Amino acid sequence: MEILITNDDGIYAEGISALACALKKAGNVTVVAPDTQRSAVGHAITISDPLRVVKARRNGEFFGYASSGTPADCVKLGIKAIMKKRPDLVVSGINLGGNQAYNVLYSGTVSGATEGALLGIPSIAVSLDTFVNPDYSSAAKFALKLALQCKKRSLPAGTLLNVNVPNLPASKLKGVRVTNQSRTCFNDWFEKRKDPHGGDYYWMTGDYKPKDADQASDLNALRAGYVSVTPIQFDLTNYKFISELENWGLKL
Amino acid sequence: MEILITNDDGIYAEGISALACALKKAGNVTVVAPDTQRSAVGHAITISDPLRVVKARRNGEFFGYASSGTPADCVKLGIKAIMKKRPDLVVSGINLGGNQAYNVLYSGTVSGATEGALLGIPSIAVSLDTFVNPDYSSAAKFALKLALQCKKRSLPAGTLLNVNVPNLPASKLKGVRVTNQSRTCFNDWFEKRKDPHGGDYYWMTGDYKPKDADQASDLNALRAGYVSVTPIQFDLTNYKFISELENWGLKL
Repeated sequence: MEILITNDDGIYAEGISALACALKKAGNVTVVAPDTQRSAVGHAITISDPLRVVKARRNGEFFGYASSGTPADCVKLGIKAIMKKRPDLVVSGINLGGNQAYNVLYSGTVSGATEGALLGIPSIAVSLDTFVNPDYSSAAKFALKLALQCKKRSLPAGTLLNVNVPNLPASKLKGVRVTNQSRTCFNDWFEKRKDPHGGDYYWMTGDYKPKDADQASDLNALRAGYVSVTPIQFDLTNYKFISELENWGLKL
Repeated sequence: MEILITNDDGIYAEGISALACALKKAGNVTVVAPDTQRSAVGHAITISDPLRVVKARRNGEFFGYASSGTPADCVKLGIKAIMKKRPDLVVSGINLGGNQAYNVLYSGTVSGATEGALLGIPSIAVSLDTFVNPDYSSAAKFALKLALQCKKRSLPAGTLLNVNVPNLPASKLKGVRVTNQSRTCFNDWFEKRKDPHGGDYYWMTGDYKPKDADQASDLNALRAGYVSVTPIQFDLTNYKFISELENWGLKL
């Protein structure tokens, strides 16, 4: 199996190293990842600037290709300019920080996998639900299992898997749940501050609303100690609303 | 009606001026937009840097607030830090260039409207399907009509309208179609070049695949000379695939 790996924390992050190491047991791994952190870039691509690619070493060995682009750029570059064979699987991660609920929309990690799926390749995004003291071992182990499952079975066209793993040792994890994206919103606000020269600036900050009544959601799976696997798609059409919108009788 | 306007071409673009001018007939307009072009940023937000906001003038008059952030940042800033009243409507555009098919995923214009919908406000993205010789008049006129319709009727929670307008004078437009997002892919590739110092770099480029068999798609509506209105949503869950994925029997 040919596997393309990317992330949004950058090629020198700990999570991508744990992922690459685990997935080597499933096939040939090619890493193409951003040269620095690109978190919360959403599904950005680079169209107004050229892209650079350099070889990156870790622990004295060739590790992968570092690009000046976003995760989506990296997946395009990997498939269309770097890899000799088309990959059988694209895996993005392991991200430091969960990508559940509406974070899915902002996530560079998910967008790397989305780009793989757009290009017709089975794709998985993997995130660890913590910002402190990460232990990537359970997530890496599960990513390997899921990669082998994706090889055996098939994903529907236009669908990728968004995996979130609690930051717990394997013995403390409760199991795996197939979930939907939580509709709970991030509750964000701005802190207005003054710089040393008297100028105003804003910091975006916030927290999750504490409750989600939807027991089948990714957020609640994580809170209960389960690995969450959400099938997500990139056809954003709300088909149910089309007939009602047609009844609006829109005219020029 | 209180209306918040943003875009991704930047606050000094022609399209946002045409939009603001038209929507003044429907209510109080507040413009919060990026200080420069932010195309193809996807649904990015700025979490690692502070955001700056300055007042911007056009034609010798106050026009709106220019921010160092992305379109999604601008909508958050407008609602949570700048506007005194919560807006009744968020409109993003008018973008120079269509945002149909998979462009929806990369689009900063759409992400501005998505952020509005995430925050519970009826939201519309408007794009003009050309990169040359834009005539914003038909799109601006239709945006006004649609804004008034959205006030009268309601959009389902979590759904926004993605509008694309052919670059034709009103007399040449065929009408309005409610559409779905085309599944046709952008066919992209990389041009590898050498810089004057011998270093390699890549330009991403490409074109649409010429055919889309789906007559109900946004792409085909535009090609036939119709304004396309697609209801899109930000719950990305593929609900249909959930039961099949549960049958995979995923384990740790």
